[in-house]
Amino acid sequence: MTRRFEFEKLGQDGKARLGVIRSPRGEIRTPAFMPVGTAGTVKAMMPESVASTGADILLGNTYHLMLRPTAERIDRLGGLHKFMNWDKPILTDSGGFQVMSLSNLRKMSEEGVTFKSHIDGSRHTLTPERSMEIQRLLGSDIVMCFDECTPFPADPKVSMESMRLSMRWAQRSREAFGDRPGHALFGIQQGSIYRDQRERSAELLKAIEFEGYAVGGLAVGEGQDTMFEVLDYAPDMLPEDKPRYLMGVGKPDDIVGAVARGIDMMDCVLPTRSGRTGQVFTRHGVLNIKNARHQDDPRPVDESCSCPACRNYSRAYLHHVFRAQEMISGMLLTWHNLQYYQDLMQGMRGAIAGGTFDQFQSDFHAQRAQGDIEPL
Amino acid sequence: MTRRFEFEKLGQDGKARLGVIRSPRGEIRTPAFMPVGTAGTVKAMMPESVASTGADILLGNTYHLMLRPTAERIDRLGGLHKFMNWDKPILTDSGGFQVMSLSNLRKMSEEGVTFKSHIDGSRHTLTPERSMEIQRLLGSDIVMCFDECTPFPADPKVSMESMRLSMRWAQRSREAFGDRPGHALFGIQQGSIYRDQRERSAELLKAIEFEGYAVGGLAVGEGQDTMFEVLDYAPDMLPEDKPRYLMGVGKPDDIVGAVARGIDMMDCVLPTRSGRTGQVFTRHGVLNIKNARHQDDPRPVDESCSCPACRNYSRAYLHHVFRAQEMISGMLLTWHNLQYYQDLMQGMRGAIAGGTFDQFQSDFHAQRAQGDIEPL
Repeated sequence: MTRRFEFEKLGQDGKARLGVIRSPRGEIRTPAFMPVGTAGTVKAMMPESVASTGADILLGNTYHLMLRPTAERIDRLGGLHKFMNWDKPILTDSGGFQVMSLSNLRKMSEEGVTFKSHIDGSRHTLTPERSMEIQRLLGSDIVMCFDECTPFPADPKVSMESMRLSMRWAQRSREAFGDRPGHALFGIQQGSIYRDQRERSAELLKAIEFEGYAVGGLAVGEGQDTMFEVLDYAPDMLPEDKPRYLMGVGKPDDIVGAVARGIDMMDCVLPTRSGRTGQVFTRHGVLNIKNARHQDDPRPVDESCSCPACRNYSRAYLHHVFRAQEMISGMLLTWHNLQYYQDLMQGMRGAIAGGTFDQFQSDFHAQRAQGDIEPL
Repeated sequence: MTRRFEFEKLGQDGKARLGVIRSPRGEIRTPAFMPVGTAGTVKAMMPESVASTGADILLGNTYHLMLRPTAERIDRLGGLHKFMNWDKPILTDSGGFQVMSLSNLRKMSEEGVTFKSHIDGSRHTLTPERSMEIQRLLGSDIVMCFDECTPFPADPKVSMESMRLSMRWAQRSREAFGDRPGHALFGIQQGSIYRDQRERSAELLKAIEFEGYAVGGLAVGEGQDTMFEVLDYAPDMLPEDKPRYLMGVGKPDDIVGAVARGIDMMDCVLPTRSGRTGQVFTRHGVLNIKNARHQDDPRPVDESCSCPACRNYSRAYLHHVFRAQEMISGMLLTWHNLQYYQDLMQGMRGAIAGGTFDQFQSDFHAQRAQGDIEPL
């Protein structure tokens, strides 16, 4: 096993890239989907079950963990991997996005952001330097720069100011991160939907140099069409030989479209959150398990799926335990959804390797159009 | 594998009995503890995980299942075993106890009981005949007679009338059960705390003949001392060559005391319910995982326990996920508690086999007195 963090591109089909990230904690096959383990657990899952779906890496949320149980406590207990019993790579976000979406009474300045915890109202400060410190204490393998996620919509002037602030914070993040072999720091491109700002952001990040680059500020309400318009050019501005990460994406068709545009890594709470609300992802679209039409249905959700929900239970059972609010409902449906997402990634990796990614995309959309679809 | 239902006593130490129940769906080692799977799931557990703890049999609740998803639906879907993915034996209660404790607007008569569902207010009737039909539709391996659980306290006259009604219902249950090789019907002794009534109840049941006998009407608020007083004589009134089941018991020390008095089978929601409320059973007593003293504790709950909670996680982690209300808290603590209960049963079976049950009891109580105990 390598002691360094490195990315190797193994193939390409159109703009879709096949690759592998090697790190001391294991390999990450790309395109990769990262399940979200917000507070030290992928909700409703045992970590060994998450690994069994094919996940090579998890995402942890700095904001949640710094508030509870605190980064210092996790460090004393041996780091996040040991704490949550996950020995493969972990990527942590910087905390910035959740501060804006979850906390109260925020105050932004050049220095950073001061906010009140949504849990107990206690006051905290996040700066690039503090975010790097927290992510180091957690033991994160892939650390994200502290940035401001530019809201959408933002007029060009607002977006430019926000992007420039994030780039100054990227420089401070790089300096604070220091020299940590085997660990990676990713820069985050901003610039909203403005091509010239995306270009400028990419140039500034490349000048600083990172082990990987994220496309930030998308999946914030702009819609798939607009997101794809930006992804038609934004990833191409980033270095060819480094992984490209699209943050917070997304629905299965978002993911396929992002990979088609040169994205290597993604994360989203959708498969796990949907698992708890009874939304089930399948090749043919989304099933809403609480719908009464499932109550006598002896069929599995998807006879071709290898997850325990599909191997061992009928739709009728899954409907029953959802209606009865039993925990096994969230456990089984989350497992299934994560399996569906990882199977989707594996399918794309195979198609890129075989030079059949266009066909894969056509089949993906045709199957979903076929039927048994309930809107999400 | 046998096609019949049979009990073999393999050993005895004092009054404590070692045995095995053989049935078409597998063997049940006794003394046995049956986890409760109320609504088609042992809450927070995958069934394969329940089996991994050493459980040979589950209990299902007729009352809950008849209301949702209904016995007829479970029958159409292939029976409860297939529905909930558990291929080992299942014991179902008769529904009578839950009707009295959970439903609304009950009306009792010689015929049976009419009540309103606690879920949707719909009207239902349970009689000995209907209870037998429901338990047959579920596919239960061990069927319980429909009875009235005599409340506590009950004066001798009330208790006598209640016991006599239950004995008439036992006769009707036996007739309605019919001839079902490989399946068992258990009679239920009543008589509250009155020795003469317990004797009379046992005589009436033995005259009817059952494949097993339960001691009913205990663990309903009478306290451990009173329960043990009754258990000092009640099990001895039941046939030596049939399994004896103490319903709804109990705490670990209740269980040890019951086995010492000749009980072979027990069930209780305590290990599963406690798992969801942060009460953790250990050799040294009960830990309350939400207590702040655990927040920095790197030790497992019990270093000698083989469950995933103890093998893979610190008390600090278990404290954190409980406080964060993460589902993995209930999943891990339930698993641990069920493992503790099954290890306790395995320990007692070994001690009875080795003729050291007295020593086992002394050690059990001494370890609990030693420390690290928080009251339940």
